[in-house]
Amino acid sequence: MSYINDNFLLSNKTANELYFNYAKDMPIFDYHCHLSEYQILENKQFEDIYEIWLKGDHYKWRLMRNYGIDEEYITGSKSNKEKFLVYCKVLSTAFGNPLYHWSQIELRDYFNCNLEINEENAPKIWDECNKYIKENEITPVKLIEESKVTHLFTTNEIFDNLEVFDCIKEKNYKFRVFPAFRADKIMNIDASNYNSYVDKLGNIKDIDELENAIENRLKSFISKGCVAADIALEAVYNVPTKKEANKVFVDRRNNKELSINEVKIFKGYLTYYLLKLYAKYNIVTELHIGAMRNNNTKMLNKLGLDTGFDSISSENSIKELSCLFDKLNNENLLPKIILFNLNPKMNSEMLTLLGCFQDSSAKGKIQYGASWWFLDHKNGIKKHLDDLTSLGHIDSFIGMLTDSRSFLSYSRHHYFRRILCDYLGNLVENNEITNNIKLVGEVIKNISYYNAINYFKIIV
Amino acid sequence: MSYINDNFLLSNKTANELYFNYAKDMPIFDYHCHLSEYQILENKQFEDIYEIWLKGDHYKWRLMRNYGIDEEYITGSKSNKEKFLVYCKVLSTAFGNPLYHWSQIELRDYFNCNLEINEENAPKIWDECNKYIKENEITPVKLIEESKVTHLFTTNEIFDNLEVFDCIKEKNYKFRVFPAFRADKIMNIDASNYNSYVDKLGNIKDIDELENAIENRLKSFISKGCVAADIALEAVYNVPTKKEANKVFVDRRNNKELSINEVKIFKGYLTYYLLKLYAKYNIVTELHIGAMRNNNTKMLNKLGLDTGFDSISSENSIKELSCLFDKLNNENLLPKIILFNLNPKMNSEMLTLLGCFQDSSAKGKIQYGASWWFLDHKNGIKKHLDDLTSLGHIDSFIGMLTDSRSFLSYSRHHYFRRILCDYLGNLVENNEITNNIKLVGEVIKNISYYNAINYFKIIV
Amino acid sequence: MSYINDNFLLSNKTANELYFNYAKDMPIFDYHCHLSEYQILENKQFEDIYEIWLKGDHYKWRLMRNYGIDEEYITGSKSNKEKFLVYCKVLSTAFGNPLYHWSQIELRDYFNCNLEINEENAPKIWDECNKYIKENEITPVKLIEESKVTHLFTTNEIFDNLEVFDCIKEKNYKFRVFPAFRADKIMNIDASNYNSYVDKLGNIKDIDELENAIENRLKSFISKGCVAADIALEAVYNVPTKKEANKVFVDRRNNKELSINEVKIFKGYLTYYLLKLYAKYNIVTELHIGAMRNNNTKMLNKLGLDTGFDSISSENSIKELSCLFDKLNNENLLPKIILFNLNPKMNSEMLTLLGCFQDSSAKGKIQYGASWWFLDHKNGIKKHLDDLTSLGHIDSFIGMLTDSRSFLSYSRHHYFRRILCDYLGNLVENNEITNNIKLVGEVIKNISYYNAINYFKIIV
Repeated sequence: MSYINDNFLLSNKTANELYFNYAKDMPIFDYHCHLSEYQILENKQFEDIYEIWLKGDHYKWRLMRNYGIDEEYITGSKSNKEKFLVYCKVLSTAFGNPLYHWSQIELRDYFNCNLEINEENAPKIWDECNKYIKENEITPVKLIEESKVTHLFTTNEIFDNLEVFDCIKEKNYKFRVFPAFRADKIMNIDASNYNSYVDKLGNIKDIDELENAIENRLKSFISKGCVAADIALEAVYNVPTKKEANKVFVDRRNNKELSINEVKIFKGYLTYYLLKLYAKYNIVTELHIGAMRNNNTKMLNKLGLDTGFDSISSENSIKELSCLFDKLNNENLLPKIILFNLNPKMNSEMLTLLGCFQDSSAKGKIQYGASWWFLDHKNGIKKHLDDLTSLGHIDSFIGMLTDSRSFLSYSRHHYFRRILCDYLGNLVENNEITNNIKLVGEVIKNISYYNAINYFKIIV
Repeated sequence: MSYINDNFLLSNKTANELYFNYAKDMPIFDYHCHLSEYQILENKQFEDIYEIWLKGDHYKWRLMRNYGIDEEYITGSKSNKEKFLVYCKVLSTAFGNPLYHWSQIELRDYFNCNLEINEENAPKIWDECNKYIKENEITPVKLIEESKVTHLFTTNEIFDNLEVFDCIKEKNYKFRVFPAFRADKIMNIDASNYNSYVDKLGNIKDIDELENAIENRLKSFISKGCVAADIALEAVYNVPTKKEANKVFVDRRNNKELSINEVKIFKGYLTYYLLKLYAKYNIVTELHIGAMRNNNTKMLNKLGLDTGFDSISSENSIKELSCLFDKLNNENLLPKIILFNLNPKMNSEMLTLLGCFQDSSAKGKIQYGASWWFLDHKNGIKKHLDDLTSLGHIDSFIGMLTDSRSFLSYSRHHYFRRILCDYLGNLVENNEITNNIKLVGEVIKNISYYNAINYFKIIV
Repeated sequence: MSYINDNFLLSNKTANELYFNYAKDMPIFDYHCHLSEYQILENKQFEDIYEIWLKGDHYKWRLMRNYGIDEEYITGSKSNKEKFLVYCKVLSTAFGNPLYHWSQIELRDYFNCNLEINEENAPKIWDECNKYIKENEITPVKLIEESKVTHLFTTNEIFDNLEVFDCIKEKNYKFRVFPAFRADKIMNIDASNYNSYVDKLGNIKDIDELENAIENRLKSFISKGCVAADIALEAVYNVPTKKEANKVFVDRRNNKELSINEVKIFKGYLTYYLLKLYAKYNIVTELHIGAMRNNNTKMLNKLGLDTGFDSISSENSIKELSCLFDKLNNENLLPKIILFNLNPKMNSEMLTLLGCFQDSSAKGKIQYGASWWFLDHKNGIKKHLDDLTSLGHIDSFIGMLTDSRSFLSYSRHHYFRRILCDYLGNLVENNEITNNIKLVGEVIKNISYYNAINYFKIIV
């Protein structure tokens, strides 16, 4: 049997009480993920544990590479079972890595399998889980519903076809699915195939036409229930004039080569434009800052994007971020923003800056987003809570995101909730906060669910 | 009753012994604060708990904004009581925020009120504290004396009238009040009203005249007991020649527009000049680095400076700082310096740099200042102690500062001392340091009081 | 008796079991140190505890300076005993500083002295240890053999005479000594005496001749058993063309003044060249990044290099590092690298970048080196483990280095092992990892010894 028991991560009595009485049964509001709306619609039964647990999971691939495993066993031609067995062996000594916990929890929560993951048990786990999948007819919708998800925002490109969301609605699942709006492909003017993306929006010649097209697409998204937009930036740039941005855009449309500075001009302008647009339509902006992508060209050419070759950037643009927020605020067009920062060293700078732009339009208008991607582990979550509580107000926090390509990742919400309950439970037991458990419990329920519902103004 | 008991933050027996036998009764040397010397002189009784506890406290304002409270209840037209009630509600779930502790401790230490701060208790607290203020005739001097303060340095502008300090002296309070010298208004050449500040020093045309005027003012400060100076910098700049700085200064006096680079030239020179001057007169320099101020223009225009819209800068000028120290050291004019750094990510860089410029002119000549402003909380103090002990010598440390506008903030010295005693107590109990409690206690007394007294060469 | 007992740093039963059953008896593979091969060869008995414990140890000097001790007692004319007594006094309250532990452990492990280090005991310690040295004829080889070192890499300049390694071999010590190759003197083209170093390699006129000379020297090193090379960089620079680098080199050979940019061009090229060369000969590259050296010119002129006046740099060249690795990887010439980073704030950036360049040529091909120099203390090691486990795979880690000029520093390996066992022991006891102690123990043995042996492909 695995090392995980009921009190996993709950180191004291109060933590236990908080988790089981307040956190455990709360539903999940999944306001950011990378699940496929088509998979949700089709709802096909999974073939085996590899398909659902390893395939496409670049977190797990990285761990295997860190252990010196041959790529054949990772993304190569080895069989599903061979890959599975190697991963189990690698995982068995990855102490402290979040996957060490996640993988074990996923087996327990979704396949009722409590065997400890290691080389010896691997074949048994393979059999047990595959049997479970077949007997219980495990599908995407089943996993989502079991996880008590009430709302789920997929992340969609600006030119995506949205009819699928109507089809999902007709299915009458126990949860609702809305698209989140992402215009990154229109922002990233330095991409080689940029013009082909713009062409999908129509015959666009200048920035006025581009803005019109973006706004029209946003309206279509809103008609499908969209209340959130997503932007990913390596860094924030200065805001130029529209005229400057237009010149760069027209040059690019005419296939002229752009300088690095011209790229920054356009990105700086478009970030500004998009935020204004989101403010106008009361769309929450989910701003992701700080990834340095595709470091390994050889593997990029072999495997493509999002295969485990990104890292944390050290770009620091806190001054530019301050100027951007200030400019929007001066124009009364600063939208609600969830800022996800990937570099933990910048937590303090970011958190104190956000505190300068709060107002009464929302509880926690500018959110400091949860510990994310490379930081989504016990230490990262603990540091996030340390910094957030010290520099902000914990009861304004809208809590965990999933940000996952896997239907099993909802267990990470409970991983987060256990850490949160342990964190506050410790404070109670050490007499550092009130011993009014009901009050503490309300805060936990807010962070687990209600704050997000209220923040996104979702009518339940 | 509130969650705070006698052993607050003292998690083990040794910590308890250290605090109560060595730290608790030590006096306070307040070598940096923003209290008003006029309020100390006038010593007027406070009107109500709002006036003394909330009014003018931008830390508390920020917390309310983070919770989405309307500005009317913060700095607006609502009544004192209405603001007080809202603050109590906001505070009740601000777990982990330093204000959550400070506010509760302040009520206990200065108003004998042990009711837990929350929405329900708020009206009772309002009544109890106001009654206490009236019955006990609470005034600034009473609060300072109760706190066992022996010396207090106000922070004064270079052109401030200093006669008030003679008047205070005549009052024969139980503590002494000296001005700390601050020339920032003369340094910040980019301020719109810069020339009006310089005019206060006389008809000054060039940098030689400016230097004479500064030195003369410093002598006046010294005649009132001044032994410390204060400088606030967002970053450290290269030191130019005096000729270069003079050109910029003369241009500014003639109302010419300055470039960003010219501003840096002048600031770089004046920082260097001031440090040399302080070395000449054996004045301790309190150097504050790393604030990014006035991020929110709209609120700056509405409420002015120091109203809760500053943040932590990411400017990194460790190389420039090294060059500045080295240049002064080569000229044998490196003064004693307390370096306050606002960005925790730079602790290691700063601490190791300071270690390169120590000498036998003082125990801890170049001090790494205590956890300050945004970092003045349990986690920040703990990290400061971790970094200071690992990279420096804890027994050289001159300890906590107040840096406050409020007469209630002396309780923060005890907040710090409890954390310090817990820190060292843990090391004793884990057999990581000596179990000679007397020796550990001496270190705690040094950090609490004696090191500062010796460092500033105050004759008690 | 001192505070250090058998369970020092082992806070629970499992930690204890792990250390004593798995870590304690493992040998030491010292893959990076600054010991003198001549001292090892001569193997002269030490004169007194000062010579072996204080002389030449700039860590200890810094601590004394931080406490305001006069340089006469540090590097000056005071007697060995006087210096020793003052150091003992200074150390007695340096709670939390790694020297506080190291010094006490060194006395216990190598001189059987358990007296607590403080002012009172200092004279007794002086006598006891000196007596021990004489009675037990303490020499370098005795210390190394007692420490169970099996292999030891000295760090040698490219032009060093290597015959000494043959002489050491003939001594038939219980450990083997190999040179590690260091070309830094040939890389640092901005040094005033640069050309004199190049001259030692022959009459070299251009970069082709330089490359030939370097490769020839490397072959000589390899013939003496060399499998590792060492590079120290303040930052990583862009890789220019060979032609650009050649121009700078030829100019320097002709004694022309170089601009800062030209220096970077040459260093950028040579780093790239050296890494390719190391890949070709399967040499492990130990890359040290992040020291800002010789901050105090006055003391540099007085005492020379490596005397305690370096600090942690804030140079951030993560993007350049990514480009360098990517370029080498594209050419299939990325060697095995151990990256030692001195700035803890960059741990996350570095670790995630390394994860992008792993492959099956080694378990942990690109290593994130152990907590080093200013970071070699309990908090630093703990943070390193936190970051390494969260972002990498702990079982790939090749563990601790010594990096020391002192023969007593092998006790730091056990300092590290105790912290590691406590770290994993805590995870076991908290049910956060498997309770299969044997499996955890294997990981500890791997990190303590076997991983390094396998990584360097040493045949034992």
